[in-house]
Amino acid sequence: MIVLMKKNCTQQNVEAIVQLLKEYGLGANLSTGSQATVVGVLGDKTKLGGVNLELMDGVEKCVPIMHSYKLASRDMVPEGRTVQVGTVTFGGKKLVMIAGPCAVENQEQILQAAEGVKAAGAAMLRGGAFKPRTSPYSFQGTEEEGLKMLRRAGDETGLPVVSEVTDHEQLAFAEKYCDMFQIGARNMQNFRLLRAVGRTGIPVLLKRGIASTIEEWLDAAEYIMSEGNSSVVLCERGIRTFETATRNTLDVSAVPVIRERSSLPIIVDPSHAAGKASYVRALALAGVAAGADGLIVEVHPNPKKAMSDAAQQLTPKAYTALFQTAVKVAEAVGRTL
Amino acid sequence: MIVLMKKNCTQQNVEAIVQLLKEYGLGANLSTGSQATVVGVLGDKTKLGGVNLELMDGVEKCVPIMHSYKLASRDMVPEGRTVQVGTVTFGGKKLVMIAGPCAVENQEQILQAAEGVKAAGAAMLRGGAFKPRTSPYSFQGTEEEGLKMLRRAGDETGLPVVSEVTDHEQLAFAEKYCDMFQIGARNMQNFRLLRAVGRTGIPVLLKRGIASTIEEWLDAAEYIMSEGNSSVVLCERGIRTFETATRNTLDVSAVPVIRERSSLPIIVDPSHAAGKASYVRALALAGVAAGADGLIVEVHPNPKKAMSDAAQQLTPKAYTALFQTAVKVAEAVGRTL
Amino acid sequence: MIVLMKKNCTQQNVEAIVQLLKEYGLGANLSTGSQATVVGVLGDKTKLGGVNLELMDGVEKCVPIMHSYKLASRDMVPEGRTVQVGTVTFGGKKLVMIAGPCAVENQEQILQAAEGVKAAGAAMLRGGAFKPRTSPYSFQGTEEEGLKMLRRAGDETGLPVVSEVTDHEQLAFAEKYCDMFQIGARNMQNFRLLRAVGRTGIPVLLKRGIASTIEEWLDAAEYIMSEGNSSVVLCERGIRTFETATRNTLDVSAVPVIRERSSLPIIVDPSHAAGKASYVRALALAGVAAGADGLIVEVHPNPKKAMSDAAQQLTPKAYTALFQTAVKVAEAVGRTL
Amino acid sequence: MIVLMKKNCTQQNVEAIVQLLKEYGLGANLSTGSQATVVGVLGDKTKLGGVNLELMDGVEKCVPIMHSYKLASRDMVPEGRTVQVGTVTFGGKKLVMIAGPCAVENQEQILQAAEGVKAAGAAMLRGGAFKPRTSPYSFQGTEEEGLKMLRRAGDETGLPVVSEVTDHEQLAFAEKYCDMFQIGARNMQNFRLLRAVGRTGIPVLLKRGIASTIEEWLDAAEYIMSEGNSSVVLCERGIRTFETATRNTLDVSAVPVIRERSSLPIIVDPSHAAGKASYVRALALAGVAAGADGLIVEVHPNPKKAMSDAAQQLTPKAYTALFQTAVKVAEAVGRTL
Repeated sequence: MIVLMKKNCTQQNVEAIVQLLKEYGLGANLSTGSQATVVGVLGDKTKLGGVNLELMDGVEKCVPIMHSYKLASRDMVPEGRTVQVGTVTFGGKKLVMIAGPCAVENQEQILQAAEGVKAAGAAMLRGGAFKPRTSPYSFQGTEEEGLKMLRRAGDETGLPVVSEVTDHEQLAFAEKYCDMFQIGARNMQNFRLLRAVGRTGIPVLLKRGIASTIEEWLDAAEYIMSEGNSSVVLCERGIRTFETATRNTLDVSAVPVIRERSSLPIIVDPSHAAGKASYVRALALAGVAAGADGLIVEVHPNPKKAMSDAAQQLTPKAYTALFQTAVKVAEAVGRTL
Repeated sequence: MIVLMKKNCTQQNVEAIVQLLKEYGLGANLSTGSQATVVGVLGDKTKLGGVNLELMDGVEKCVPIMHSYKLASRDMVPEGRTVQVGTVTFGGKKLVMIAGPCAVENQEQILQAAEGVKAAGAAMLRGGAFKPRTSPYSFQGTEEEGLKMLRRAGDETGLPVVSEVTDHEQLAFAEKYCDMFQIGARNMQNFRLLRAVGRTGIPVLLKRGIASTIEEWLDAAEYIMSEGNSSVVLCERGIRTFETATRNTLDVSAVPVIRERSSLPIIVDPSHAAGKASYVRALALAGVAAGADGLIVEVHPNPKKAMSDAAQQLTPKAYTALFQTAVKVAEAVGRTL
Repeated sequence: MIVLMKKNCTQQNVEAIVQLLKEYGLGANLSTGSQATVVGVLGDKTKLGGVNLELMDGVEKCVPIMHSYKLASRDMVPEGRTVQVGTVTFGGKKLVMIAGPCAVENQEQILQAAEGVKAAGAAMLRGGAFKPRTSPYSFQGTEEEGLKMLRRAGDETGLPVVSEVTDHEQLAFAEKYCDMFQIGARNMQNFRLLRAVGRTGIPVLLKRGIASTIEEWLDAAEYIMSEGNSSVVLCERGIRTFETATRNTLDVSAVPVIRERSSLPIIVDPSHAAGKASYVRALALAGVAAGADGLIVEVHPNPKKAMSDAAQQLTPKAYTALFQTAVKVAEAVGRTL
Repeated sequence: MIVLMKKNCTQQNVEAIVQLLKEYGLGANLSTGSQATVVGVLGDKTKLGGVNLELMDGVEKCVPIMHSYKLASRDMVPEGRTVQVGTVTFGGKKLVMIAGPCAVENQEQILQAAEGVKAAGAAMLRGGAFKPRTSPYSFQGTEEEGLKMLRRAGDETGLPVVSEVTDHEQLAFAEKYCDMFQIGARNMQNFRLLRAVGRTGIPVLLKRGIASTIEEWLDAAEYIMSEGNSSVVLCERGIRTFETATRNTLDVSAVPVIRERSSLPIIVDPSHAAGKASYVRALALAGVAAGADGLIVEVHPNPKKAMSDAAQQLTPKAYTALFQTAVKVAEAVGRTL
């Protein structure tokens, strides 16, 4: 951390900073330029706890220069991590294609969806049983029954399944049905839930919060990893901006940024970003071209009758067409699918 | 809801919409203008469930015209609601001043803080025991012990207390210590927690999420109210924007917008919005002038040594000065304090 | 436009609206549902001029349902437009690759850059002579001399050239040197400049403003087209969001959205969005995969010594590598390059 | 500026930085901590021109610690500047109330407006003659004729007048009619226009761009001041965010932030931020309470018939009521009106 002193600070102000750092076991590097005096903090600044140097007399501002995540950083595993879910590997040369309906509605629907996405070539099945919905009057999900149906559909098609958990109490039974837990955008900073999935050992798909910076997202991954679970896959799904033509704005730049800063695999969710089926294909292919390690796409056997997020779900036919083009784009950037 | 048809839609497309609405017990109003054909949906559109008319052939887009919250709307209680916490009333002519430290650190600290804010004139005491923190390596709160200390400080000074709950499991014991529960910005869409506090009957201070629209905020209030608890006070605390000079951008416009759309009282939190003590005063006074029903301000007996959010906490002395000016501003806009 | 009446509106309120519409030569369609009364405005609402129905008694709000651009809309030319710059065609099967330095610095630099990008396969040369800079103390461009150097570099390599104009007074001489005018993000709503380039007949590359919605962008294109110049190519270059890891957030969704709403070609500028050379490749390929009609990439013979935007410019070598992969991605999505 | 080196940088990397700084006449301060090596740049970093140290081998990132504006900074005039427009003073104890219609429509309308706002107590008259409009099909203003009418209305009521200029060519004749030039939000980074008004010596009201940071806004003021005109008054008018309940989000925090960083007076425009007349009062009072040096409010003799921005203009009666409360709020915070 760098402490920038005010132009009119006194020698005593500077000494007080140095002294305080010393008290907390930290060193100081003084740099007196023509325009400003700067104190560099030497050592691990977490030793300072809540002490805020900006409140010291003569201080203009503090500029952090290091990020707070460690396990999630690229430095730890420069070659990148892989995450294993059954026979599926995230972070290898081969991309992971996850697909399935927004919500598990009934056994027939999820089975049809599973067969459809399997036929198209998908490697994993998704389906939500706990649906966080903006209004209390909207459909809220089929809960544990839904997880059972999802499991059965996965078993019948041989696809590992991923489903969202929204509360730590669900983990005990959800473990029986899920091969991978999804943490949704709204829960990216539900720290208790993050810690809880961190203690399970089950791989986690961590969606980015719609208003979360990439740094905060990696801090959230750090919560899971600091409990001993390093099987974390990040998922970019759009951020909230002023643009209303799409439900959210897919931040495709997150792919190269994460690649540079973190060792974790990253996949893209074009469906929630777009909010409209006709835009999903373009965003999916953009994600693959940008270097994502996979895609998670919403596919429903009959989108017109879907109980949630109907507007953005693809038919199995449209998904198949998307898949076939995605194969070519993946190969163009040196990957397989 | 209004269904705008495409310019090149067919008569059959329009009839299919009307037919589908009929199936779901809804009426249709056709309007064929020179530029477009519009179908107005008559009746309660929630009957449609997940059916999305945008997926029907010939449809350009659907435009919702009604909001989804009911209990939280102004229509229900045009004269506005009041919320009672002990002897304190939110939503009356007199503003409610809540103050206290970001976190309850120890008994002495919270007691000093309570005495300081009481002396300044505050009506309620705040203090966090469960601290959601971006990094897992930051101080995470004093938990139940903290709540006990807060309760004692409240009892000794005669101030009702409000504290954040972050998980429904905390409610059973938190009820013993808190006069009001706070739902933090990160949990504004933690729907299970919202439902759980909705079942307690204890008044709730519902902070706005940093990326939540006012409509989503009222939908969140609706979750609480739909469980039978209508003692909800809204709290504007800043939203995330591109500006980095402040921690968040206080959306002071939320005050008149909420006043128009909702019957619920609204207070302003200038501390989290500002993120810097020197800006708190201006934002606090702006909130009062805009018509807020109160303020919640972070005050710490010794901000330099605070264990969290040190930069934005006021000293009791600075708070007292703020309070005295706030009294005058409140009177200027026809309120008391 | 739809006029939503308040729940407690009177019959007289509704009649007053209908009467006012009649005065302005417009019709009305009444729809009285169980929840609200809605008045549909029939006819061209621009007849209303500045009259705002939201100010009429009993009106809750007005909901626009039609966009204001006409010439730029997809409806006008459903098969899409092409824009010709010399022998280069925007909007055809073959993508247009534009490349060159941020700023024209001197004759040698721009010539080297032109040769480098030509060798890589680029079809057009870019280079800025008028540089809008945030601070008055930054390098402001080589102005008309720069345009001359750019022209010469274009002539020697056989590449058409595009350069930014920032003021209508520049057009008279800039016409002599440029094959295409660029309107920068900061000038997207400089309406006088838009009208002026609209009267030149020279093709225009219209960048999106960093805080402009897609609708506003198309309205800006409409300014140019309404003066008789329909050779407009749109350029997505990133929008301003809360994320600071990149200079701006590339809104890759703009590609499919523009494709659906407008007949104009759209290209992507990965350099300004990224603000960092190491992210340019990923964003460029994402743009191609999403269906963009071309790319404009900043390439400098020696980025480390560049006089502006040094951080985001590629070396000719890095550009060549990017180009070769872009060819493959283009083919994967059915285009050529 | 601080240069943060990569963890795995070599001694040679660091020496290369130091050497390069030396070449450009700058010093270096090395700080080798347990976590990172940091190079502090000593001297005026503008000497580096376009050279970007982030491109040097071994560099992680560069962190700027100083702002680029000088004349606009608080440091230059710690006690704050005042700006004189005729007998009106911005930045003194007394607030400046500017009011008038969005657009000058005809002589009668602007005269009525002037009389209305004068009677309410306003000190200056506003009215737009050049109207930048999103769509080319909207009313574009009465241009020079409008300025003449505005001047006459100002003369008849004894109010100095302010009006927007959108192009440097307008200045020659606009000088004859205006006591103060307004630079609108869309032109905040129209650098040629900024320089041109900087050369006139006429006071300038500089609105903040809807996507501009406070730092960029001060850089824009610096453009004007660097040409010799230090009579600049800043105007906060709302920024673009994800919230759609208001036209823009009034960033009331800008008032204390500007007060801390700059010596320039700052006023608040509640009308454009709100976009709706019923919210104007709350935002106006919030601005005064936050410490603004004045307000600029849109007032029209007959808002329902206004030719632009009808929804947000107040009647003279509503303005009078607002004014009277603003007087009280101003006094509450130690100002007069």
